[in-house]
Amino acid sequence: MGYVLRNCDFALTWVNEELRILRKVDVAIEDGLITNVGNIGSTDLEEINCSGHAVIPGIVNAHTHTPMSLLRGFFDDAELTLWLDRMWTVERELGPDVIALGSELSIIEMIMSGTTSFIDMYHNPDVTADIALRYGLRAALGPTFIDTLRDPTQVENELRNFVNRFRGSRLVVPIINVHSIYAVNKDTLLRAKDLSNELNLPIQIHVSETRDEVYKVKREYGVFPVEYLNSLGLVSSKVQLIHLGWITNWELGIIAGANARVTHAPTSNMKLATAGHFPMRELMDMGVLVTLGTDGPASNNSLDMFREMKMAVLLQRHSYWDVGIKAVHAFKAATLNGYRLLGIDGGCIDKGCVADLVLLDLSSPRLQPVRDDNLLSNIVYSVDGSDVSTVIVNGRIIYDRDRDYYALRDRAVKIGEELNDFIQRFL
Amino acid sequence: MGYVLRNCDFALTWVNEELRILRKVDVAIEDGLITNVGNIGSTDLEEINCSGHAVIPGIVNAHTHTPMSLLRGFFDDAELTLWLDRMWTVERELGPDVIALGSELSIIEMIMSGTTSFIDMYHNPDVTADIALRYGLRAALGPTFIDTLRDPTQVENELRNFVNRFRGSRLVVPIINVHSIYAVNKDTLLRAKDLSNELNLPIQIHVSETRDEVYKVKREYGVFPVEYLNSLGLVSSKVQLIHLGWITNWELGIIAGANARVTHAPTSNMKLATAGHFPMRELMDMGVLVTLGTDGPASNNSLDMFREMKMAVLLQRHSYWDVGIKAVHAFKAATLNGYRLLGIDGGCIDKGCVADLVLLDLSSPRLQPVRDDNLLSNIVYSVDGSDVSTVIVNGRIIYDRDRDYYALRDRAVKIGEELNDFIQRFL
Repeated sequence: MGYVLRNCDFALTWVNEELRILRKVDVAIEDGLITNVGNIGSTDLEEINCSGHAVIPGIVNAHTHTPMSLLRGFFDDAELTLWLDRMWTVERELGPDVIALGSELSIIEMIMSGTTSFIDMYHNPDVTADIALRYGLRAALGPTFIDTLRDPTQVENELRNFVNRFRGSRLVVPIINVHSIYAVNKDTLLRAKDLSNELNLPIQIHVSETRDEVYKVKREYGVFPVEYLNSLGLVSSKVQLIHLGWITNWELGIIAGANARVTHAPTSNMKLATAGHFPMRELMDMGVLVTLGTDGPASNNSLDMFREMKMAVLLQRHSYWDVGIKAVHAFKAATLNGYRLLGIDGGCIDKGCVADLVLLDLSSPRLQPVRDDNLLSNIVYSVDGSDVSTVIVNGRIIYDRDRDYYALRDRAVKIGEELNDFIQRFL
Repeated sequence: MGYVLRNCDFALTWVNEELRILRKVDVAIEDGLITNVGNIGSTDLEEINCSGHAVIPGIVNAHTHTPMSLLRGFFDDAELTLWLDRMWTVERELGPDVIALGSELSIIEMIMSGTTSFIDMYHNPDVTADIALRYGLRAALGPTFIDTLRDPTQVENELRNFVNRFRGSRLVVPIINVHSIYAVNKDTLLRAKDLSNELNLPIQIHVSETRDEVYKVKREYGVFPVEYLNSLGLVSSKVQLIHLGWITNWELGIIAGANARVTHAPTSNMKLATAGHFPMRELMDMGVLVTLGTDGPASNNSLDMFREMKMAVLLQRHSYWDVGIKAVHAFKAATLNGYRLLGIDGGCIDKGCVADLVLLDLSSPRLQPVRDDNLLSNIVYSVDGSDVSTVIVNGRIIYDRDRDYYALRDRAVKIGEELNDFIQRFL
């Protein structure tokens, strides 16, 4: 069982870290993998006519809080600390049924805008994982340590159950979530590290998002946040550090030396006015794996990774006062680097890569004119999610605009109505 | 001849400078004006079913260079000075036929993403005006003084002809364009001012976009750019100042004192790495009319004003390190303030306002959940242009997604192919 993507106008892939644009190619997919790229003769595989389309590697949203679409636009005009406090007021009341609605809504939005994988931090990850599996989307997730809301022993138990249930899944990658230094105590951080070692799981954590956080950590522990995590053994190749808007030069050295992974979430940082600067160029120059995330739909308020790629380039250029960060860097962060972070051979269109792919319909007026030399620009700066015509994950077509658009839209509207019934009491 | 927009889920308008959201209303349009808003009984007007939609005021793109879609993605990764130089290399070779293609492509993109009026700076404005009229879009434009490319006497003659041709048009508003202090000499600036007085026309000019510009003006004239313009009588209620990324406190005072108008173009500033800060809050606090523009499609690379509204909020929050600039400010800049800049009673949904309106289809998953309290957030932070279902300008439906989408798309693709034939020689 498989497909031939026949006669793609363009295919974008990575060869030795460089972007390569292929013209008029076919891509064969079998058993979840790309098995051939080039001019492919007739096969027994199902044919998909890709004329007028570009095929690009799957896109990884490296940091989000999927269920939070339920809070989209709920309390938009606050800075982080106040905003989080308000979010938590609602989040204390959430049951799995409401979380399921939020996650399903976000998964619909992600699929329709070309995301093939997401890394999630929230409660009830089993609920979100089940929905991701139902829709065929790849997801890395797990329970979240956040002492302000949850007992850590309970979270540990959930984690063990979650791992037992999903270890070996083709689409679900278990991870350990730790909200932040400020939302857990030292014992919980050490517990997370021990669990990471014992169960061989990656950890993601928000770090150095605000000046206030840096100030408080420095005052309490005498060191900067990344130094503090490092002192506990929590900066390593198994750790994904999110935000990093306020870090020192020597913290960059710690991150690079430990081969830790980092994620930039520019829109959310701007919307919550955390200011600061994610030092993307220094991180890249030091060889650190840089990825991109939308953050949650309550602080973005979109899950469209094309918009996030553009935002990353724009914000970096604004911060550096130069054009050193280019479209290609954002595209790499969202594709190749995203799959490296997941530990999956993907984000590329080559024999042996996992068949996570997106077809872009190039006929939209906003994408004209289109040529080899401006295709990448158009993808990063002009595409929006509605140009996505087909999404393939693990060799399976999980979204076909012609087939699925109206059904998904109607389901999303229905979910929105149910969420409003829940939200009413907090207004 | 007219319409009733029947049973709109929401209508957004302005009452005494405050946003007002109306529920379940009808809007009557006759002879280019809004004639009734509320629960309207049966009429002889054509009915448009607006259930599931929000009707919002028309959106003004207050600064663009319409034909430059022909250069979309052409030379993306340069800072302003180098970028302009490369643009001008191509632009010296442009004839009206190529300009027509670029303008038509941009006008298609603007209409489809909900722009009802645009203010344009380019050559051959008669060509662009004719296309705007053909599509029914409102446009303020006129020949551009730019001594580095054009003889100013020739530009003046073109201006007089342009005014003679379009004075009194219902859709075309003649203006005087002056590229910038650095692209014209003092005589040209004075000539533009005299023409503005003689012909009673507004002027738009790029000012203080880069540090380099400020530095050069200071070195050559001993004063800052706004001071220099003011010394020539070029800061007044007839002057629209674009960019203002690098201005002093006392220049803000000059602008406010003279009641000059200003336009923020955040995406373009960020993409060209001009850095700086457009002091939106101080300008608003001083009572200055603030508007928004995408700038040209070669430096954005989108003409979607919804994206620009979001970008304005995000960049301002990032710069101020607080959330003082909110969705409502961007929405006002793009609607009510845009029409004030044009000198037209629009940007509102009230009896007597010009009937420039946009219908948003609220069924997209990215807009769920939707309620009174988060509708504006969803519009500014989550809508993209493809949520626009209907665009009405001067009481006429110039875009109906169901009726026009495929024809416009196919025309845009055709234009793209013709533009590529032209661009080839510069690659």
